[in-house]
Amino acid sequence: MTSLRLAGFLAPRSIALVGCPSDLSRAGARPLLYLKKHGYPGQIYPVNPRHGEIGGLRAYPTLADLPDRPDTVWIGVPESDVLPVLEETARLKIPNAVIMTSGFGETDAAGAAHEARLRAVADAAGITVLGPNMLGFVNCWERVPLTFSSAGAVDRLIPGALGIASQSGALGGVVVNRAFDRLIGVSAMVSTGNEIGVTVSECLEYFADDDRTRAVALVAEGIRDGARFRAAAERLLRAGKPLVALKLGRSSAGQRNALTHTGALAGSSAAWRAVARQLGIVEVDTFEDLVEIGGFLSRESRVVRRGAAVVTTSGGASIMLADQFEAHGVGLPRLAPATVHTLGRMLPAYARTRDNPVDVTAGLSEALFGSVLETLVADPNLDAVVVAATSGGADRAQNIIRVAKAADKPVIACWLGGSVIEAGRALLDEHAVGCFRNPASAARALAAGRAVADARAEWTRRPQGSRRPAPPADPPATYAALASLARRAGVPLVAEALVSSPIEAARAARRLKFPVALKVVSPDLAHKTEAGALALGLDTAPAVERAATRLLRAARGRRVEGLLVQRMVQGVEVIVGVTRDPAFGPLLVVGAGGIEAELLGDTSCRPLPVTRREISAMLGEVRVLRRLTGYRGAPAADVPALIDAIAAVAKLAAMLGDRLTSLDVNPIIVGPRGRGAFAVDLLVSCEGPVVRGERT
Amino acid sequence: MTSLRLAGFLAPRSIALVGCPSDLSRAGARPLLYLKKHGYPGQIYPVNPRHGEIGGLRAYPTLADLPDRPDTVWIGVPESDVLPVLEETARLKIPNAVIMTSGFGETDAAGAAHEARLRAVADAAGITVLGPNMLGFVNCWERVPLTFSSAGAVDRLIPGALGIASQSGALGGVVVNRAFDRLIGVSAMVSTGNEIGVTVSECLEYFADDDRTRAVALVAEGIRDGARFRAAAERLLRAGKPLVALKLGRSSAGQRNALTHTGALAGSSAAWRAVARQLGIVEVDTFEDLVEIGGFLSRESRVVRRGAAVVTTSGGASIMLADQFEAHGVGLPRLAPATVHTLGRMLPAYARTRDNPVDVTAGLSEALFGSVLETLVADPNLDAVVVAATSGGADRAQNIIRVAKAADKPVIACWLGGSVIEAGRALLDEHAVGCFRNPASAARALAAGRAVADARAEWTRRPQGSRRPAPPADPPATYAALASLARRAGVPLVAEALVSSPIEAARAARRLKFPVALKVVSPDLAHKTEAGALALGLDTAPAVERAATRLLRAARGRRVEGLLVQRMVQGVEVIVGVTRDPAFGPLLVVGAGGIEAELLGDTSCRPLPVTRREISAMLGEVRVLRRLTGYRGAPAADVPALIDAIAAVAKLAAMLGDRLTSLDVNPIIVGPRGRGAFAVDLLVSCEGPVVRGERT
Repeated sequence: MTSLRLAGFLAPRSIALVGCPSDLSRAGARPLLYLKKHGYPGQIYPVNPRHGEIGGLRAYPTLADLPDRPDTVWIGVPESDVLPVLEETARLKIPNAVIMTSGFGETDAAGAAHEARLRAVADAAGITVLGPNMLGFVNCWERVPLTFSSAGAVDRLIPGALGIASQSGALGGVVVNRAFDRLIGVSAMVSTGNEIGVTVSECLEYFADDDRTRAVALVAEGIRDGARFRAAAERLLRAGKPLVALKLGRSSAGQRNALTHTGALAGSSAAWRAVARQLGIVEVDTFEDLVEIGGFLSRESRVVRRGAAVVTTSGGASIMLADQFEAHGVGLPRLAPATVHTLGRMLPAYARTRDNPVDVTAGLSEALFGSVLETLVADPNLDAVVVAATSGGADRAQNIIRVAKAADKPVIACWLGGSVIEAGRALLDEHAVGCFRNPASAARALAAGRAVADARAEWTRRPQGSRRPAPPADPPATYAALASLARRAGVPLVAEALVSSPIEAARAARRLKFPVALKVVSPDLAHKTEAGALALGLDTAPAVERAATRLLRAARGRRVEGLLVQRMVQGVEVIVGVTRDPAFGPLLVVGAGGIEAELLGDTSCRPLPVTRREISAMLGEVRVLRRLTGYRGAPAADVPALIDAIAAVAKLAAMLGDRLTSLDVNPIIVGPRGRGAFAVDLLVSCEGPVVRGERT
Repeated sequence: MTSLRLAGFLAPRSIALVGCPSDLSRAGARPLLYLKKHGYPGQIYPVNPRHGEIGGLRAYPTLADLPDRPDTVWIGVPESDVLPVLEETARLKIPNAVIMTSGFGETDAAGAAHEARLRAVADAAGITVLGPNMLGFVNCWERVPLTFSSAGAVDRLIPGALGIASQSGALGGVVVNRAFDRLIGVSAMVSTGNEIGVTVSECLEYFADDDRTRAVALVAEGIRDGARFRAAAERLLRAGKPLVALKLGRSSAGQRNALTHTGALAGSSAAWRAVARQLGIVEVDTFEDLVEIGGFLSRESRVVRRGAAVVTTSGGASIMLADQFEAHGVGLPRLAPATVHTLGRMLPAYARTRDNPVDVTAGLSEALFGSVLETLVADPNLDAVVVAATSGGADRAQNIIRVAKAADKPVIACWLGGSVIEAGRALLDEHAVGCFRNPASAARALAAGRAVADARAEWTRRPQGSRRPAPPADPPATYAALASLARRAGVPLVAEALVSSPIEAARAARRLKFPVALKVVSPDLAHKTEAGALALGLDTAPAVERAATRLLRAARGRRVEGLLVQRMVQGVEVIVGVTRDPAFGPLLVVGAGGIEAELLGDTSCRPLPVTRREISAMLGEVRVLRRLTGYRGAPAADVPALIDAIAAVAKLAAMLGDRLTSLDVNPIIVGPRGRGAFAVDLLVSCEGPVVRGERT
C-alpha cells in the first residue's frame, strides 16, 4: 500500500545530514538544530568531509563512512553536488532521500534536465524522494522535524489531528507555525517541492490512512497527478476527513510563477474548482482560514445543518455575523418559544433582541451571559451556538469553555476584539474550543462542515467502479458514425435525416414535418452560416428542394458527406461541452446558449464521470439557466429531459475515451416540460480525425 | 461651521458622569476609570445621589449641585431616568450630552417614541447629543477616553492620523484596540449609536477639517442622512483623506438587525456600493483590512500607479502575491534591464527568478537580501516594493525599515509567517512601515491608494455647483407633456408621432418611413402587449390604418390620449433607469436589455448627478454590454450617442426633481457607430400622477 511507504518515510530511525555546516549559526545547520531541539529520538549523522564533530555529534566525511545504513539522507548540498550524493545514496541502498536544494525543474531547461537525471537515479534504485526544492517535513507525533522551514523553529511541536501537505516548503512551515500559534495540533507536515517522488496526492493518501489525522490542510500551486489527486481526495472524503485547500496560482502571473517555481502545471482555475466542488474540498483564501477551519474540522465532526444561534453583547457584531452567515449559507433559525420565554425572564428590558441573533447588550453580567448561553444550547431548533465577542476577555472565555464542554452541539466563538480580550482567545485555544477571528471564517467553518458531509453522502451514493465501455477502435470519421455513436450513448439528436440529393431532402422533410433546417455536412465546412451551407425555416417541400440544390451548388469543390435535414425545434438553449484539463482530465461544462455564457463566464463545470444529481446541481449553478424553471411567466422547461441529455453527452465522452480532446453540443434546445430536449449540433475533436456536425 | 461643534464636543474641559457607581469594579465605572487611567486633563464630576466620593473624586448628588457648569454630561443611567437627566442638562444649559443607555429607537415603537422625546428636548435646548445606544468617544490627542468600550481599556492611547467613526460602540472600540495593537495612531474615535444628534456624516465632516486626521475608518450599519453623508465623503475626498469603510447590514438578516440595532435604514447594498464607487470610498470586509489599510493610507500618500515589485524568499509566497495583485488590479511591472543585470551578478545561480516577482530563494543571507531590496528600489519601472516574508524575523524587518526610510517610493511588507518571525512584524509596526498580514490586504491597500487618487482627480474635474433646472410646476400629466419634457432634456426619442385617427396614423407612418410600430397611449393600459394595444412591423400605409382601427376598437371604454406611431429601429438594447434610494436619493441604473440583466444582477449604478466619464465607466461595468464594443465580429455600437442619451435621461430625472420616484427607459436601442441611439420606451412615476409611455 502506497501510504505505508510514506508512513515509514516520515518516521526514520536514523538520518544522515549531508551538507550540514559545522558553524551552527549558518542556515544549513537548521535541520540538525531542529532535530536536536525537539528531541528527535533516532540517530543523527552529520556528513561533512572537513569536520569530525558537529554540534556535539560525530561527523562523517561521506555517506559511505557511516557506521550504519541510515533510513534517510537529507541533501542540502549545492546544486552541482546533488546528483553524486543521490547516486551514493542509491549505491548504499539507503531507502529515503530529502532533497532541499533548488535550481532544478523550477528554473530552466538545463535545470529540468538535471532534475530528470535525479529522477532516473531515484527510480532505478527505488529511493523514496521528497523534493527537490522544498524544505522537508515535520512528524510531530514521532518528533521528526526534518526541515529547514519555520516549522522547526517553533518552541515546541504540538502533536495533533491536522495533517499538512504543501508544495511550497516555506508556506508549509508558515502553516505549522500558525497552527501551533493557535495551539492546533499537527500530525505531520510534508512539503513536496518539485515532487520527483512524493507528491501532495501521496501525502493525502497517507493522511487518509493515518489514524492520528482527522483533517488535512493543503497548500498547492499545481497538481501534477490529477487522477491520483482525485482518488486521494476521494479516499479522504470516504474516511470522513475534511480537506481544506489554499490553492495558489489562480492568476495568470501566479500561474506563470507556479511554472517557474515548482514546474507544476497549474491547470485551469475552473478545473480545480470543479474538482474541489465534486470532492467536498473546502477552498480557502488565507492562512488564517486554512488554520482555523482546518483546525476546527480536525476536532469537530458534528454537522451544523439547520444553522446556529449568534449571541453577542454588540448589535454591530450581531449584524456582522448575520451578514456572513447569509453569505455562506449558514442558517440563523428562529429560537424556540420556550427559549424566547426564558430569555425574556432572564434579560433586562433594554436588551429586547430576543430572536436570533441574540444581542444581550453591553452591560450584561458575565453570570447572566453564561445563563443565556446555557439556554441557547438547550434550544432544539439550533445545531450550534456562536458567541461573537467584542469584550469580556477571560471571563467570557471561561463561560464559553464551560458551556461548550457540556454541550451536545458545537459552541464556538468569533473573537472580534483586540489585545484587550486576547487572554480569552488564548484560553479558548488552550481548551480547543473553536475560535475564529473573523465572522466570515466562522461562517465558512460551519458551512464547510456541512458541505463536506454532503459531498461524502453524495459520494457514497455514487455507483462504484468504472463502467466505461471500451472505446471504439477509432474515433468516428464521418458525421454518420458520430451520430450513430451519439444515439447509442442516448444523446437525443433532433429528428433528422442525412440524405444525398435535393429530392431525398424534400422527402425527408415531409416525413420530419415542417419547418426544417437544411445543412451541408462536409469536413471542409466548419462554419456553415458564413459558407452559405445552411438554410433555416424551410416550410414546404419545393422550398427544401430549391434550398438543397442551392447549397450543393455552393459546396461544389468540397468533400460533401451529405445533406442533413433537421426538424426545427424551439425552447431554451443550453450549451453542453466536454473539455480535457491537462491535470484533471475530461470536464463537463454546462452553460446558457447565446453569447452571454461566454461574456459572463456563467457556466458550471465538473470532472467526469458525473451523477444525475450532480448534473442537476450544475444547472442550478448557471445563473442565466434560472429561466429553465419558468422565469417571468414563461413555462417551465423539461429539465428531466435536459438532465438525461447531458448525462448522455457525458456517456458519449466516455465512449470516445482518452482520445477525446473536446466535445461540444451547442445547443441542446429544451422544450416545455414533457416536450423533451434535443441536441441540434455536435462537434467532436479527438486526437486524430476531427468530425464536425454543426447544425442549427 | 458644523465641524467646529464636534471639535469642541470632542475636547470638553469638564465632564459630569451621571450614573457612575461608587463600586469601581462595576461596569458603569469604566468611563471614570478610563478618563483617570489615560490622564484626562479636565475636570471630572461623578454624579451619584448616594455617595459623596467616588474613586477619590468628590461626587455630587445631582447635576444642579456641581460647582461649575460642565461642558459635557455622560448619561449612563437606566432607560427610564435618561429623559429627566437630559431635561436637567437642558435646564442647566450644559452644551453636550453623551447618552450610552440603550432601549430606545433600536427596540420597538415605545422605544422610538421615547427617543423622539429625547430628541425634542435636545433640539429645543441646542444640546449636541451623541447617542443614545453607543459607547462614547475617544479623543487621543487631548486624552479624552470618554467611553465604555474597549477603546478605553487599552494600555495607552496612541495619538495619530486615523480618524474612526462607528455607529456601533463596541465595534468602534474594537477598531481602536486593533489599531493600537498595530501601533497605528488614532486621532479620535466617535461611536454614534442611534444618532439623534451627531451622525457618522458629521464625524466625517469633522475629520475632513481636522488637520491631525489623514484618513478615516468607518463602521456603518445604515446611513440615515444620505445627502449629508455624500457631501461629507466628498469633503474628505477633496481634502485628500481616504475613507475606508466596513459596511454592515448587507444581508437581509443583517439589515433586519441593523433596523433593530440602531434603527437606521440600511438602504440597498447596490446604492451603498454606487456611492462608494463614486466617492472613492474604500470598501473592506474585515477589521484587519480596516485597520491595516486605513492605517497605511493615514501615513502614505504616494500613489502606486504602475505597480510594484514583489520580493520574497519563497516561491509559494511570490505566487500568493501575484494572484492577489492580479485580482486587485495592481501591476507587477517587468524589471528594468539594469535591475535584471544587477540581480544576476548579485544572486546565486539557483535563484534564477530575476523577473518580478523576485524569488531570491530560502538560503539567501540577510545582507544580500538588503542589497536586492536596494536594487529594486532604484528600478525606475517600479512605484513600490513589497517584501513577502515567511522567514527572517527581526533581521529582515531591520533591512526593510532601513531601505524604506531612505526610499523615494513605498516599501512595504506582507508578513506571512507566524510567531517565529513575529518580532519582525513588531519592529515594522514600531517604525510605521506598512505591514500586512495577508497578500490580499497588501494588494487592496495599493489598489485603494490609486482608486482614491483617481476618484479625487475625477471629482475635481466635475462641474461645481448644481445646475438643476427648477422642477416643472407639476409632473407631466400626459404622454405628450412627458415626451416634450424628455426632448427638452435631450433624450433621443425614436422618430414618432402622436396622432388621433387611423388616417393620421397612416400619414405619419409614411413620413416616418416603414416599418413602424403602433401603440395606444392610455393611462389605463400599462401593459400594451397583453392588452392588444400594440402592433409591430407594419410596413405599408393600409396595414397601419387597419392596425390603428383594430387597436382603437380594442381600447374602447378606456381613456385614450392618442395613437403613437414610431419608426422601428435595430441595435443593441440597453436599459436605463433612475430609482430613488431611501438613504441616498436618485440612482442611475444601466443594464443590458432582455432578461439577463435581471437574472444576473449585471447592472451598474451611480448616484445622480453623474458625469459623462462616469457613464462611460458604468457601461464598462456591465459585463453583457461588452458587446457594445463589437463582440464576435458584430459592428461596434454608437457608444458616444448612448452616453449622450444616458446623460439626457439623467437630466430628465433632474428636471423632474424630488417628486420623481422612478424613471425607466427600456430600452434605448443603440445602432452601429455613427447611427445613433434611440429611446423607445419611457415610463415615469412621480409622487402624484403616473405617466406611462410604453412603446416597443
